[in-house]
Amino acid sequence: MFMKSNNEFKNLEPMFKPKSVAIIGASRDPDKVGNIIMQNYINGGYSGDLYLVNKNADEINGMKSYKSILDVKKGVDLAVVAIPAKFVPQAIEECGKAKVKSIVVVSGGFAEVGEVELQNKMVEIADKYKIPLLGPNCLGVMDPRSRIDTLFLPTYKLSRASVGSVSFVAQSGAVGSTILDLISGEGFGLSKFISYGNAAQVDEVDILNYLMHDKETKVIVMYIEGIKRGKEFVELAKKITKIKPVVVLKAGRTEAGASAAKSHTASLAGSYKTHEAIFRQFGFTIASDLSELLYYAKIFASEPMPKGPNIAIITDGGGTGVLTADAIGSSKSMKLGTFSDDISKKLRKIMPVLVNIRNPLDLAGDADSKRYSDAITLLKDDESIDIIVVIALFQTPGADSRLAAELIRIKQLISKPMIVISIGSQYTEMHKIMMESGGLPVYDSPASAIESLSALYDYHRYLKH
Amino acid sequence: MFMKSNNEFKNLEPMFKPKSVAIIGASRDPDKVGNIIMQNYINGGYSGDLYLVNKNADEINGMKSYKSILDVKKGVDLAVVAIPAKFVPQAIEECGKAKVKSIVVVSGGFAEVGEVELQNKMVEIADKYKIPLLGPNCLGVMDPRSRIDTLFLPTYKLSRASVGSVSFVAQSGAVGSTILDLISGEGFGLSKFISYGNAAQVDEVDILNYLMHDKETKVIVMYIEGIKRGKEFVELAKKITKIKPVVVLKAGRTEAGASAAKSHTASLAGSYKTHEAIFRQFGFTIASDLSELLYYAKIFASEPMPKGPNIAIITDGGGTGVLTADAIGSSKSMKLGTFSDDISKKLRKIMPVLVNIRNPLDLAGDADSKRYSDAITLLKDDESIDIIVVIALFQTPGADSRLAAELIRIKQLISKPMIVISIGSQYTEMHKIMMESGGLPVYDSPASAIESLSALYDYHRYLKH
Repeated sequence: MFMKSNNEFKNLEPMFKPKSVAIIGASRDPDKVGNIIMQNYINGGYSGDLYLVNKNADEINGMKSYKSILDVKKGVDLAVVAIPAKFVPQAIEECGKAKVKSIVVVSGGFAEVGEVELQNKMVEIADKYKIPLLGPNCLGVMDPRSRIDTLFLPTYKLSRASVGSVSFVAQSGAVGSTILDLISGEGFGLSKFISYGNAAQVDEVDILNYLMHDKETKVIVMYIEGIKRGKEFVELAKKITKIKPVVVLKAGRTEAGASAAKSHTASLAGSYKTHEAIFRQFGFTIASDLSELLYYAKIFASEPMPKGPNIAIITDGGGTGVLTADAIGSSKSMKLGTFSDDISKKLRKIMPVLVNIRNPLDLAGDADSKRYSDAITLLKDDESIDIIVVIALFQTPGADSRLAAELIRIKQLISKPMIVISIGSQYTEMHKIMMESGGLPVYDSPASAIESLSALYDYHRYLKH
Repeated sequence: MFMKSNNEFKNLEPMFKPKSVAIIGASRDPDKVGNIIMQNYINGGYSGDLYLVNKNADEINGMKSYKSILDVKKGVDLAVVAIPAKFVPQAIEECGKAKVKSIVVVSGGFAEVGEVELQNKMVEIADKYKIPLLGPNCLGVMDPRSRIDTLFLPTYKLSRASVGSVSFVAQSGAVGSTILDLISGEGFGLSKFISYGNAAQVDEVDILNYLMHDKETKVIVMYIEGIKRGKEFVELAKKITKIKPVVVLKAGRTEAGASAAKSHTASLAGSYKTHEAIFRQFGFTIASDLSELLYYAKIFASEPMPKGPNIAIITDGGGTGVLTADAIGSSKSMKLGTFSDDISKKLRKIMPVLVNIRNPLDLAGDADSKRYSDAITLLKDDESIDIIVVIALFQTPGADSRLAAELIRIKQLISKPMIVISIGSQYTEMHKIMMESGGLPVYDSPASAIESLSALYDYHRYLKH
């Protein structure tokens, strides 16, 4: 049904780091997609050359507009195409003649609505000129470093993420946009965002190939509905997780979902079990829901590999310590560690008499930054402890921004994974933002924290085996 | 080890609806617990009579202060005790002589630190005078209707919840305070909050007994570490879920957690499996994490019972529809429904040609409030559909506050459960608050939404069996 290009020319670098961008379909009409994309470039701080192309305009909002990309007569690294589907093949032909280096087609109206011929024609032209083409029917790409942003969603609706090390790949525009929006509230930030829609030419294999070698990308997170080039994917899968962690959420886990996915992107979801087996074999981290994607991205973005599964819990709330111990007990990989005798004795000496020296270490509701600091400073050198989980409940009398600052300070002195669990509303949220800005990942429930640590440790074991 | 009182006088009404409150240990020192409690009463809008008691003061911040509760010489419905442990028995004796109707001891320093004798002595005195006593070592009670608030945590640290129908019972102060803080951001609001600490006299059985008959409480949510009166608890469990839903998070699910719980509240956690069997047998909804407690509270607070398991998904994002179908496929109880032929035909007539008439119903990214409204209006009368899940992604071009308003409007016309899934940051959060204020529960992931609906349906089946 679909023609599939297999050429080797698909270098995506000009899509993410273009020195010049042309918006084909730029518009002064605020209801048009081309207008929003244009506005996002103008307001987003992109510092390369920007060319507007609109066959009906010489000028748009005071900026020069070209009738065709052929009129630009300067090198264009990336052309963003946002015009009705039927005009797209002609535009691609012109891009080819103009020696454009990469193309993102955000327009819909192709295979997803039965216009397979039109889509194939478009790909044929791009292939002829050896231009990598992303889309159609996609949100395109975002890179906070180069300020590339082809999204046709205004920033008030979808907050843009800050610069970071996680790259996010999404077949679905809706899933991609919600995740991208959520990332804006997280401390880890974004390296690259790619929504690839119909995957008419550039597909998940091309994208992963690029991200595998991208130095700005430390973690790859992906939402996929189907995999088109199974054999190539497996070849890639063997290599990629040896280089960096890949977190995957695959739709169609169940019959109901698979059937819905088929209708959505017209791609065969394939047997989920087959896919899952491949993911497991090659050390992918498998998420089963959107929220898990974020949890896992967070831990991989910030934490070093744990040497073992033994967790120390340090808390200012006894009950929350118990629930975290339960989360560890429910996990297949993690263990509640036992403090060494030596460290226990040292803790006994400096902790108030009412603090029981055992794991979880309940510092009590009046614990202040010093008590936390004293405990963590000792436990960071305890060889029987591999990971430190700090529960900081900012509702308690002793917890304030001094505690958050102290935890950020200690984090820099510690070589083991160290994460924080803080649960609450405004006052807590404020301190969460503070700690995450300081490089300390914060989780909002014991379960999400421990599941994330477990994913990190499982990946470590995969690399070691 | 613990003396346990079994008297029948433990009516908790004066704790939640007192006409007069005395704060024993009121203080002008901002670092003292008694000061924070006093400030919370003064600023919180409590309209009954407030008496301050401090053996060293005649006046505190311009208000009259009594040396002893015996000097008040007016009826006191609730005495909040916040003085050092060793002085508590004497204060309880004086409360007895002053015919105080109920006591909350927030002070710590009793059984939880080995002072079992002191605790027993205190209970003995309360029993002698037949006064219900909550605590010690607890946060006490909150009731947003009567503005009772014995919490010694300032409102900037712990946001207070608005008036609602969910009552929350927590043995642990830390867990209680975080949940209470989180509830402040939810639409369902609070009926009663009770943190009962050491449960020296009033325990979970007394509290559930009270809440079972409390007309302001529609849903009971509880966090417990141990159950002290097993036989009475089972008797109560048989009755309570026939009257209202009870959501329970029991600590000590695992060996690690049980051991930690034992150290925390010195109460035997008992075998979790035994407790779980009782909860299941009597239709309790079992949560395994703090976040689940909130999800379940939300669904029970707002939704009617579903007649069956068949869910219709209406979405403006295809991928999110697929993930929701997957969540349904993963659930033991729920089913992705099939639209009836009649309704399918009607949908075909009014939906744009590109909208595929099947479940999930993908209205496409340009769906506006009218398209949603048209679809829901038809599906609400489809007898093969029992539950409507609306996915409203506010990043999409068509979704705005007009859509939120329209969903709130339709919610009032529909007798089936109807919930919303919206995922995102600021713009989404704003619409979430809007919809929840309008009585429409909003979930932030497909998994949490479907698990909650499943809990609702399972409870419905329990009531029917």
